[in-house]
Amino acid sequence: MTATDPGTEQDPRLDRLYADFAAEHLNPLWTQLGDLMPERPAPRAVPHVWRWSTLYPLARRAGDLVPVGRGGERRAIALANPGLGGVPYASPTLWAAIQYLGPREVAPEHRHSQNAFRFVVEGEGVWTVVNGDPVAMRRGDFLLTPGWNFHGHHNETDSPMAWLDGLDIPLVNYTDSGFFEFGSEQVTDAATPRVSRSERLWAHPGLRPLSGLDDTPNSPIAAYRWEHTDAALREQLALEDEGHPATVEPGHAAVRYSNPTTGGDVMSTVRAEFHRLRAGARTRTRREVGSSVWQVFDGEGEVELGDVRYRVSTGDLFVVPSWARWSLRTDRGFDLFRFSDQPVFERLNQSRVFIEEGQA
Amino acid sequence: MTATDPGTEQDPRLDRLYADFAAEHLNPLWTQLGDLMPERPAPRAVPHVWRWSTLYPLARRAGDLVPVGRGGERRAIALANPGLGGVPYASPTLWAAIQYLGPREVAPEHRHSQNAFRFVVEGEGVWTVVNGDPVAMRRGDFLLTPGWNFHGHHNETDSPMAWLDGLDIPLVNYTDSGFFEFGSEQVTDAATPRVSRSERLWAHPGLRPLSGLDDTPNSPIAAYRWEHTDAALREQLALEDEGHPATVEPGHAAVRYSNPTTGGDVMSTVRAEFHRLRAGARTRTRREVGSSVWQVFDGEGEVELGDVRYRVSTGDLFVVPSWARWSLRTDRGFDLFRFSDQPVFERLNQSRVFIEEGQA
Amino acid sequence: MTATDPGTEQDPRLDRLYADFAAEHLNPLWTQLGDLMPERPAPRAVPHVWRWSTLYPLARRAGDLVPVGRGGERRAIALANPGLGGVPYASPTLWAAIQYLGPREVAPEHRHSQNAFRFVVEGEGVWTVVNGDPVAMRRGDFLLTPGWNFHGHHNETDSPMAWLDGLDIPLVNYTDSGFFEFGSEQVTDAATPRVSRSERLWAHPGLRPLSGLDDTPNSPIAAYRWEHTDAALREQLALEDEGHPATVEPGHAAVRYSNPTTGGDVMSTVRAEFHRLRAGARTRTRREVGSSVWQVFDGEGEVELGDVRYRVSTGDLFVVPSWARWSLRTDRGFDLFRFSDQPVFERLNQSRVFIEEGQA
Amino acid sequence: MTATDPGTEQDPRLDRLYADFAAEHLNPLWTQLGDLMPERPAPRAVPHVWRWSTLYPLARRAGDLVPVGRGGERRAIALANPGLGGVPYASPTLWAAIQYLGPREVAPEHRHSQNAFRFVVEGEGVWTVVNGDPVAMRRGDFLLTPGWNFHGHHNETDSPMAWLDGLDIPLVNYTDSGFFEFGSEQVTDAATPRVSRSERLWAHPGLRPLSGLDDTPNSPIAAYRWEHTDAALREQLALEDEGHPATVEPGHAAVRYSNPTTGGDVMSTVRAEFHRLRAGARTRTRREVGSSVWQVFDGEGEVELGDVRYRVSTGDLFVVPSWARWSLRTDRGFDLFRFSDQPVFERLNQSRVFIEEGQA
Repeated sequence: MTATDPGTEQDPRLDRLYADFAAEHLNPLWTQLGDLMPERPAPRAVPHVWRWSTLYPLARRAGDLVPVGRGGERRAIALANPGLGGVPYASPTLWAAIQYLGPREVAPEHRHSQNAFRFVVEGEGVWTVVNGDPVAMRRGDFLLTPGWNFHGHHNETDSPMAWLDGLDIPLVNYTDSGFFEFGSEQVTDAATPRVSRSERLWAHPGLRPLSGLDDTPNSPIAAYRWEHTDAALREQLALEDEGHPATVEPGHAAVRYSNPTTGGDVMSTVRAEFHRLRAGARTRTRREVGSSVWQVFDGEGEVELGDVRYRVSTGDLFVVPSWARWSLRTDRGFDLFRFSDQPVFERLNQSRVFIEEGQA
Repeated sequence: MTATDPGTEQDPRLDRLYADFAAEHLNPLWTQLGDLMPERPAPRAVPHVWRWSTLYPLARRAGDLVPVGRGGERRAIALANPGLGGVPYASPTLWAAIQYLGPREVAPEHRHSQNAFRFVVEGEGVWTVVNGDPVAMRRGDFLLTPGWNFHGHHNETDSPMAWLDGLDIPLVNYTDSGFFEFGSEQVTDAATPRVSRSERLWAHPGLRPLSGLDDTPNSPIAAYRWEHTDAALREQLALEDEGHPATVEPGHAAVRYSNPTTGGDVMSTVRAEFHRLRAGARTRTRREVGSSVWQVFDGEGEVELGDVRYRVSTGDLFVVPSWARWSLRTDRGFDLFRFSDQPVFERLNQSRVFIEEGQA
Repeated sequence: MTATDPGTEQDPRLDRLYADFAAEHLNPLWTQLGDLMPERPAPRAVPHVWRWSTLYPLARRAGDLVPVGRGGERRAIALANPGLGGVPYASPTLWAAIQYLGPREVAPEHRHSQNAFRFVVEGEGVWTVVNGDPVAMRRGDFLLTPGWNFHGHHNETDSPMAWLDGLDIPLVNYTDSGFFEFGSEQVTDAATPRVSRSERLWAHPGLRPLSGLDDTPNSPIAAYRWEHTDAALREQLALEDEGHPATVEPGHAAVRYSNPTTGGDVMSTVRAEFHRLRAGARTRTRREVGSSVWQVFDGEGEVELGDVRYRVSTGDLFVVPSWARWSLRTDRGFDLFRFSDQPVFERLNQSRVFIEEGQA
Repeated sequence: MTATDPGTEQDPRLDRLYADFAAEHLNPLWTQLGDLMPERPAPRAVPHVWRWSTLYPLARRAGDLVPVGRGGERRAIALANPGLGGVPYASPTLWAAIQYLGPREVAPEHRHSQNAFRFVVEGEGVWTVVNGDPVAMRRGDFLLTPGWNFHGHHNETDSPMAWLDGLDIPLVNYTDSGFFEFGSEQVTDAATPRVSRSERLWAHPGLRPLSGLDDTPNSPIAAYRWEHTDAALREQLALEDEGHPATVEPGHAAVRYSNPTTGGDVMSTVRAEFHRLRAGARTRTRREVGSSVWQVFDGEGEVELGDVRYRVSTGDLFVVPSWARWSLRTDRGFDLFRFSDQPVFERLNQSRVFIEEGQA
């Protein structure tokens, strides 16, 4: 799409008009339509892979050099999409960072309207305290801190721990909709139970406490434990083996983390899923409005991002910008965590998905 | 409220008018307003208790005398509310029956638009096959057969088994909205797995299969297992002990069985809950629009129904008609299953609850 | 469907079993399955037509003989479906009555949880006062009194007036969910404006007052005026003439009265529609779960009800029981008002519609 | 909020760490937390007023110099918020432009997923053709072009016409979610009816065509006519005069344009309202998450934006960035059109409103 040619560009009256526009804080559509309204999404964000083998040592170095405490709040190192000019955004809407907490360290409490989660690719020994409820963090767990809940973290071991933080910071920042408040310097409950109170109340399949009948915009489950995720995926593949419909496509099991009060997404701006491909499986190629960040949890395989194929293995992260082609395949099988901004587009009626035919 | 006195009752013109009304299939409001529109619900259904010690032997005698098979379909013995003139209804909306299946018997498959569930107060060894998915029945389990799913039952043991069937038959019958279809003479899948396929796909806390993202009006979970219900209740009481909000009122834990795709009731016309009162606990006294049927699952205690108190223990059933006062108390603690027609009134915007003050 | 033959009926043990069942308020399913759960709805209610030429004189006679006032409350004469044994119900769920108010009479205020509306087939000069808002009643108007709003009527003319009252009394009575309260002996606001306050606030197409942003279960519009209904129907037929989709089927225009806060039905239990068939048009034949009552507003035509065809003209009323076949046809064109219990079945997920093919 | 001091800034190891972060497309949170997550929204966009007396002559000059046609598509001159560095955005989410169409000109058809509307502050004689439905544009009308509807405009007079275009271009562009497609060079239906087909089908208060029972994410009403808006506002003030609740606050009438199929906003990303303040009235001071653009339609008054008060009169536009204080007051009374991104924040559960107390 090219802009219309508005008469002769040399016309000095036109130059003067554009100058007068600028002086009055006005800006013509016709010279820039193609950029403003492209025929399909043309993101500046690019597909990119970050290697765990690179990330983790850098996080450790930060652990040695940068204290955690009030003001900086978190030792979190954000994925900065190479197409976005250095801002700490994985995509225009999504924040993804590695947070690193050294032995016995405490990240002070605060709260913000931005929705946050954590996903643990390795390690354990940190508790995140969400509105006073201590939540253990262990490999494979997916943990929620929905907007405006006070939260801090403390490491109860002599080893450091690192995990993935995901938030909607870029979207909230762009739309000027965020609020932030400092809380306690120390966590408000230093207990270290294996299971949080929120799980004890809410993480029973299909059961809702009568004391919690009001629907909530975000899930009341603070921790989705690996044992459940793993079992759900294992059963899907077993059902497929037995000849019953259960998987997304052959060899591809997947679950969406959901809010038990509504069946919807865990948080109003963030979707989170876990995918398992059995050895030899491949997904169809998709394009979707909206972006997502993936982390390989286990195994290894290949991801096609736009026109490039990357081999990825445990801990590696990659971002899929809006409308970029993507597919997965694996010889040995692999497990992947994914989060995205899909609820935003579904709620705003802007969602589109395109699945290439003639594959699988 | 008394009807207006329409002039002098002896007026022969009035008699003739009423006769002419009748001849034309007309009927005046003013002579019967109080019955049609009482100041508060005035159900014909009455509170009543049925004893397990009476029910079970009668069911066993039916087992000896009445075959199960095509036509009669089920050896189900319904609670007939004494106020309703002999119809097999626990209340105007609810059907509750004891179904009895002898050793090695099979109840043939059929389907109907009426929503059904089963709750098991004792025994095991029967599988209910719901749309081809074999679902084991064991003590404490709550099992769904939402409308229009083919289902049959088969007893794989040398012992009989009995359980509670609950349906919306009376409401559907009254409103002329039911459909029924015969199916296979034998169950379509005679396998006897411990866990149904529906559970393998759906009964993981807060996890939704990506192959099942469309919401369904009724829950896709065929069996809510006792181990989960028991754990949820136990945790509520433990949280209460630790000083955290979790129970409905002191000493009263309760869960609602829910549809994981929506967070709502398991079926569009039926609510199901499980209540546990610890030793020494009592509930507040309530009145609610709509009726419910309770079965004591374990322990014993006292139920106040209207103006009468009854001692009830394991297996006993009682019905609470609309707007009847009810409360529970127990010295030794007890567990109760409950089902009701509450979704009907909530969906039709006719729900009201009155909780008496100054108690508990 | 026939009940299973439970052994030999003469078996005295069986007789004793059934007697013991009865003594314990129990009732077997197997002897009555076909009645309880027929293969398709088998209503006791029958199709029936009531003639305006019969109804109106009877109402006038009631006007001469029966006073209106506290206690009887309303001079309303209900359609009593011939299949329902004399109860004043048009169907198991719907109440339809002709209400007659003599010159200068007042029907006192009261309120009830039952939802009510009025539809005016002829006349004017009565105001219904709904929660203090005086609402003029004129030919073709559809007027709402949703549950728990105080309301009374007063005739400001020297002529009587009669209209159709529709309510959900039978459903509410059956389900024991109704509440009733007496109010003022006289209407609380005797003003006689042409337009109610509710219309002034709410009856502007697609416009919602900022002072009324909370959704309400029932429509806030007290009167749907004939001029709007007529215009909407006229435009549908004109659009059809111009070749654009607008009608339900050829020559059949129809509108549903809706709640502007949700787009849904005007009241939670009642659907109301207005249908216009142009000269020579006919509808397809339908069966629907749920019942409806129709009143011819203008013109004349033929209605097929089950296996019988009736000629109907202005003022005539007919009832269509659940799952009964119905269709309309007309040589000269006619207008019909309809109300039904459809929202009940849609909300309870029990709705079914069957449209016969190969017609129209 | 200030960033934590990470050791000594001079530490060369830290410099190297930050350089290594940058090389790996990583970016620390702790050095920029305050900017990313401020305590309350801190928009770059600023409050600003654009004068109609300046805008219109510039639009006319563009009319003389810049052709309308394929490629440039529209002669639209966008408000460029002075805080946003020259991009043609009124706020980060909202596009607002003056579109100018000369005598007999045609703006060719296209469609895009971005939602669009037009509001007419003066003039008439242009038809916008939306999916083949010709919609007349007249002073005071609010006209919709929801996403993915083909639309073009043609001026049937010998005078130019200008109006306000509003879209969600900035939000869609930022989130990479837009699609665009060229259509016909000429409008597909050149008819010039006073009323569009969409209005004939849908713009009847509380009436829904039976041929349109499926809810739509955007309103099916193509034009909300001034006569209805004006009447609704006039009635609110009259009801206030009569002592009844109807206005937002004393002397402040307002309507929200709504989707009759849901009662919700006209489009999934855009809210539109019309406000009328009677002479002497003032609003309370508000802060809201999200931004809005206002245009004075008639009269004159004063707007407080942040700390500055501006006198505004017919045609003037102003933007209120997120969380900026705003209030209105007027001596002589004025009418204002408003549009905003509020549905975005409500749907994403990020909405907040703060109303200052002790005023009004």
